[in-house]
Amino acid sequence: MIKTITSKDNARIKFASSLKENKYRKMHKMFLAETYKSLEMALKHHQVVEIFATEWIDVPEDVTLNIVSEDILKKLSSNVNPEGVVFIAKMREYDDKKYNKILYLDKVSDPGNVGTLIRTALAFNYDAVFVSEDSCSIYNEKVINSSKGAIFAIPAFERDISKIIDGHEVIVSTLDKDSVDLENLDVPNKFILVMGNESHGVRKEVAELATKKVKIRIQNIDSLNVAIAGGILMNKIR
Amino acid sequence: MIKTITSKDNARIKFASSLKENKYRKMHKMFLAETYKSLEMALKHHQVVEIFATEWIDVPEDVTLNIVSEDILKKLSSNVNPEGVVFIAKMREYDDKKYNKILYLDKVSDPGNVGTLIRTALAFNYDAVFVSEDSCSIYNEKVINSSKGAIFAIPAFERDISKIIDGHEVIVSTLDKDSVDLENLDVPNKFILVMGNESHGVRKEVAELATKKVKIRIQNIDSLNVAIAGGILMNKIR
Repeated sequence: MIKTITSKDNARIKFASSLKENKYRKMHKMFLAETYKSLEMALKHHQVVEIFATEWIDVPEDVTLNIVSEDILKKLSSNVNPEGVVFIAKMREYDDKKYNKILYLDKVSDPGNVGTLIRTALAFNYDAVFVSEDSCSIYNEKVINSSKGAIFAIPAFERDISKIIDGHEVIVSTLDKDSVDLENLDVPNKFILVMGNESHGVRKEVAELATKKVKIRIQNIDSLNVAIAGGILMNKIR
Repeated sequence: MIKTITSKDNARIKFASSLKENKYRKMHKMFLAETYKSLEMALKHHQVVEIFATEWIDVPEDVTLNIVSEDILKKLSSNVNPEGVVFIAKMREYDDKKYNKILYLDKVSDPGNVGTLIRTALAFNYDAVFVSEDSCSIYNEKVINSSKGAIFAIPAFERDISKIIDGHEVIVSTLDKDSVDLENLDVPNKFILVMGNESHGVRKEVAELATKKVKIRIQNIDSLNVAIAGGILMNKIR
């Protein structure tokens, strides 16, 4: 269905704008995303509720396309120069499936890091990404942007690690002295790879769940960026 | 030497502020940086010209410390919540040294990516980082921030690849069909690793310089973030 919206006070525009706040995202189980690339992936995975675009685009019959002015699009977008499309997507229902290869983020707080880690987990064919409830929300618009559409293709949830361990090896990334060098790690079939906070690393209570600890050999500097470390680890541990 | 500055119109504050523009950075061969961690690394490498801080800090005698108000510090800082210190650093003079292990960025445009790649190159003990002159400037404040002080510890310059090849193997990161999987790459002793633009990859004229082409095996998605790809490649190619 195609509609034209000319007023910023339109109810659908107001509803869409409300999804910029986490409170309303949680209430409605929906979130905002943008760019044509993300839309393509979201459509492929049947997660699109409604689209706002400045031009006509070809979409399935059951999805509403709202043609809006550039001004209205800017109101919905989180980018200074939006690409011309913003859409409402529905959050994935938690399905209690069994996942063998999981990336877990323990209080990772930078949205760019969270989004990039989700994108990288998809590229290395992980089954799911879980983030602790005090990590940056996976529905934050900067996470969505930096995931480059990956959020629609890989199951991703906000849920504590204690609720998902089910016979998994828990591999914790840490510079602790008893960590194994990545090159010497035996990669198990069923695991949760845990990455920690940008400044403080993995919390003690989470690190205590480790069945394996792993580190990347570095010099000259205290630590790698968490997304870089995650990329290096996932490239080997997959 | 310790001074107190109380006015935003002070000549040193005006001079420091001017360094937010690339034009003035190039003219004076100086740039702004912040955070105590960066300051520590910049002092260690003798690149600090002058410091602005809200509190007294212990600095070498030949460096001027200006005590300023929080308002003045905010004017100099590029962060919403500055850490309390901003400083003027001098650019490294190009020294024509021989570098064996080089990272080269071909038109990489995102400052977070450039800064993170510089930090990662330092962690993997690279000898230098070069960026093409149409890449994001290495003195951009977001590059400095995301390098986490690495910019002071590893030689980094803006200079075309044609001027630095000197018997190096040129290893280009590309998804071309004739690229070798990273696991199968023989790592040479003297090389330039080339990473390309976020959207367009390495330019044709630069790719033609390749003596080796390398790729990371990925699934489900077109590409990795350039900083992630760089991290994975440098972890192996070092």
